[in-house]
Amino acid sequence: MQLRAIFSMEQLLVDMDGVLADVYSQFLRLEREETGVSLAPDSLLGKLEAEAFPHYEKHVHSKDFFRTAPVMSGSVEGLRYLNEKYKVVVVSSAMEFPDSLFEKRMWMAEFYPFISWTQLVFCGDKSVIRGEIMIDDHPKNLNYFPGRKILFTQPHNLLLPDETWQRVSNWEELLRIL
Amino acid sequence: MQLRAIFSMEQLLVDMDGVLADVYSQFLRLEREETGVSLAPDSLLGKLEAEAFPHYEKHVHSKDFFRTAPVMSGSVEGLRYLNEKYKVVVVSSAMEFPDSLFEKRMWMAEFYPFISWTQLVFCGDKSVIRGEIMIDDHPKNLNYFPGRKILFTQPHNLLLPDETWQRVSNWEELLRIL
Repeated sequence: MQLRAIFSMEQLLVDMDGVLADVYSQFLRLEREETGVSLAPDSLLGKLEAEAFPHYEKHVHSKDFFRTAPVMSGSVEGLRYLNEKYKVVVVSSAMEFPDSLFEKRMWMAEFYPFISWTQLVFCGDKSVIRGEIMIDDHPKNLNYFPGRKILFTQPHNLLLPDETWQRVSNWEELLRIL
Repeated sequence: MQLRAIFSMEQLLVDMDGVLADVYSQFLRLEREETGVSLAPDSLLGKLEAEAFPHYEKHVHSKDFFRTAPVMSGSVEGLRYLNEKYKVVVVSSAMEFPDSLFEKRMWMAEFYPFISWTQLVFCGDKSVIRGEIMIDDHPKNLNYFPGRKILFTQPHNLLLPDETWQRVSNWEELLRIL
């Protein structure tokens, strides 16, 4: 890769939970194990995770919740491709959950080994991070971002109008627009 | 505090190791315990920590190295004051050391409880963080910062010329210019 190409690359901020990590599958599995009942997909629509999953607090504070999350379908090859084309920074609002920091660092190293630790940021408030493009499933992160905003569909955001962002439903759609 | 004041505040990026955490004291203590000999202060000048401390790798990878670091003299009251006057973000290049993430998160909560987890950022490369003022002991972080740069004196940077930054030797001096 030419040095000139690296310097002219746009900085692309990629969210972890809900974009790389399939946390909904993780929540659904743990709720099923907890109660023996599968939550109906419709019951998740328009609710934040903390509202949608009755045992949310227990799950997010349980050891290995983040370490054992499944990767989002298509995200490994997708991120590998984007990492060649953009200056990728993986940004996670991990700071609220102290145990998640180590787990997320190890999870990234295992599933996305082509992403260096120099490309990772764990924070509490994403508005402090620079970038030209942001991919996130949470409007609260996109709303204060001054660049191009891409919303990754998850049940909690499915009912929101798409006025200020581009919406993608999966990694295939994401790669089509980037 | 008035909302207007919050919005007009400058964003101040404060480094952890070498500014809030007195890692040199921690290294010196551990070297002394390791070898029975105290390193001469002159032997540290102009060398990065990895060069100055013979057992650097062992220390930084040892459990609780960051968790038990002493706080820099004057930094607790100093940061409390700055936190009223600026939009403080504490930024640490912690990502290289996975175990340090949890330790640093807990250390901040213990010694600087007035700093919320929403004000913490752990990264690998500080050039992705926005801000108007940066306080750091490492020129590599200040060099790519577009705002006002303040170098906090540590033995490794003591011989460098002060051309592109303001230098402060301690928290008292820091508060005098901020």
